[in-house]
Amino acid sequence: MQLNTIYEPIQEDSAKVENELRLLSKVDSSRLAELLDYSLGNGGKGIRPALTLLSGKFYNYNLNTLLPMATAVELLHVATLVHDDAIDKSAVRRSRPTIYKVWGEDRAVLLGNYLFAKAGELTATTQNLRAIKLFAQTLRIISTGELAQTFNAFELEQTYEEYIQRISYKTATLFILATESGAVLSEAPEASIKILNEYGYNLGIAFQIVDDILDFVGSEEELGKPIGSDLAQGTLTLPAMLLLERYPEDNPVKRLFHNRNEWQNIKLAIEIVRNSPIVDECYKVASDYCAKACQNLTLLPENASRRALFELADYIIKRNR
Amino acid sequence: MQLNTIYEPIQEDSAKVENELRLLSKVDSSRLAELLDYSLGNGGKGIRPALTLLSGKFYNYNLNTLLPMATAVELLHVATLVHDDAIDKSAVRRSRPTIYKVWGEDRAVLLGNYLFAKAGELTATTQNLRAIKLFAQTLRIISTGELAQTFNAFELEQTYEEYIQRISYKTATLFILATESGAVLSEAPEASIKILNEYGYNLGIAFQIVDDILDFVGSEEELGKPIGSDLAQGTLTLPAMLLLERYPEDNPVKRLFHNRNEWQNIKLAIEIVRNSPIVDECYKVASDYCAKACQNLTLLPENASRRALFELADYIIKRNR
Repeated sequence: MQLNTIYEPIQEDSAKVENELRLLSKVDSSRLAELLDYSLGNGGKGIRPALTLLSGKFYNYNLNTLLPMATAVELLHVATLVHDDAIDKSAVRRSRPTIYKVWGEDRAVLLGNYLFAKAGELTATTQNLRAIKLFAQTLRIISTGELAQTFNAFELEQTYEEYIQRISYKTATLFILATESGAVLSEAPEASIKILNEYGYNLGIAFQIVDDILDFVGSEEELGKPIGSDLAQGTLTLPAMLLLERYPEDNPVKRLFHNRNEWQNIKLAIEIVRNSPIVDECYKVASDYCAKACQNLTLLPENASRRALFELADYIIKRNR
Repeated sequence: MQLNTIYEPIQEDSAKVENELRLLSKVDSSRLAELLDYSLGNGGKGIRPALTLLSGKFYNYNLNTLLPMATAVELLHVATLVHDDAIDKSAVRRSRPTIYKVWGEDRAVLLGNYLFAKAGELTATTQNLRAIKLFAQTLRIISTGELAQTFNAFELEQTYEEYIQRISYKTATLFILATESGAVLSEAPEASIKILNEYGYNLGIAFQIVDDILDFVGSEEELGKPIGSDLAQGTLTLPAMLLLERYPEDNPVKRLFHNRNEWQNIKLAIEIVRNSPIVDECYKVASDYCAKACQNLTLLPENASRRALFELADYIIKRNR
């Protein structure tokens, strides 16, 4: 199923989010405008703002608060990508040179800060203290997760639980912000807020696991960035962990982490994973998280958005970018 | 006059801010704790949080909101320093190796983000929407100012007005956040909020001009960092602008900006500025801003904090670090 079809219940308002994002580049400084234009015209999938709008569809759907919130969620996402690329020195994302590559590290850091701030300002316009707190908390947890990732880089001794916690901090937190803020702003009852929070968490974990799989089996053309970059950064993801488990003695990941920058080991690790049952096993873990995401959705009012949330969980697994 | 003496009306609560900052390093991850401990035990002058507390002393002084706000203001300041050092590749600040130097660029960026977020969370605990909006706006304006600084680096054609706008964005905005949030949280009437906002603005401009002077005439020991770093970064400050005005033909700043990384030109520029009336002229500009800062303070209720604000304006000019 195509994303466009899934987004149907919120089609009009998704277009409004995109318009809000475009309007953000209308600033006095033409040089800042250029940076904003480039970073916000990024051809993303728009999953996070869609989650906010869809989650807002079960009770009092109020576009006056949901529109700035959905925009803030996407901005926060873009800001973390801009910083990540600077930190990882990534040259390409979504088939285009990164901000880091074109404008340098300084501007990437400062633009990311600008986007964080703008996202905070938009969140503040909702005048909803709970959403505001959730937003600030989210940025802190993401930073904590990314710091943990740098501390654990090239570290072979990591447990499955540590992996799940790391991707929970780094990725699922933002999905939780997306769904929970939608629920909160539409005045959902606490039980429904909890269901949408858990949907966000489990979907986010599944999303990141699939991302981590695609870094092994994806096509660079479809992904719009080089594969194998997690290993190159020394980030141990689920496929790599399973590879280590299967071949504890002579293992390309082990050799790579001991002796960095060996491209032949990355290639070899990718090769072995692709031709092993590891990919299916990882997809099984991701699917289980998607199933968990959906498990309580039926307790929400039945509507087109609820169907879209089910479809999105399905899409997350099948996507190739 | 010593800062300690000036801070007397808020002595007890300043200690509480310091305590709050210390408590922030109590986190699960020992590695993050170490980073927080290092960055927050920084021996700063504490001017910004003091401004929040002092500005809160004229109407309903409520420590429940002023304490987290003052802490947030200091955190935001520290976060920008941590990022600045990473961006400028500065090795030393306050006589210690910077976070960038010890932990690397990645951690400096992520720690800065963590501190921004934590500051946002603390601001949110005030539950005051006006303070929250002001906070988010401040971060955006600071980022805009710092981006402008990178765009104008090594650019000789800059006007005095552009300089004032740049330092207004980069520095005075945070002073405004400090004073205005204190006023807002203590439920000051609009006229008083305006007086304290303008005090913050003018004091911030004066503070940055003195910073820019000290980068020429300061002692590295007292400053705790190398002098001449603005010129090395290609940042045109007031003393350098006046130097260009005085010697439009053969000028070390001109040579430096055309042909970067020439230490002898930085040395020569410092030498000429030190032995010219330029220093006094710059101090005159800073003093005028301090006078402007104080001009309406007498319209506020008379108390010990008002005296402290006058003294602080005096201190800003006379400081050597």
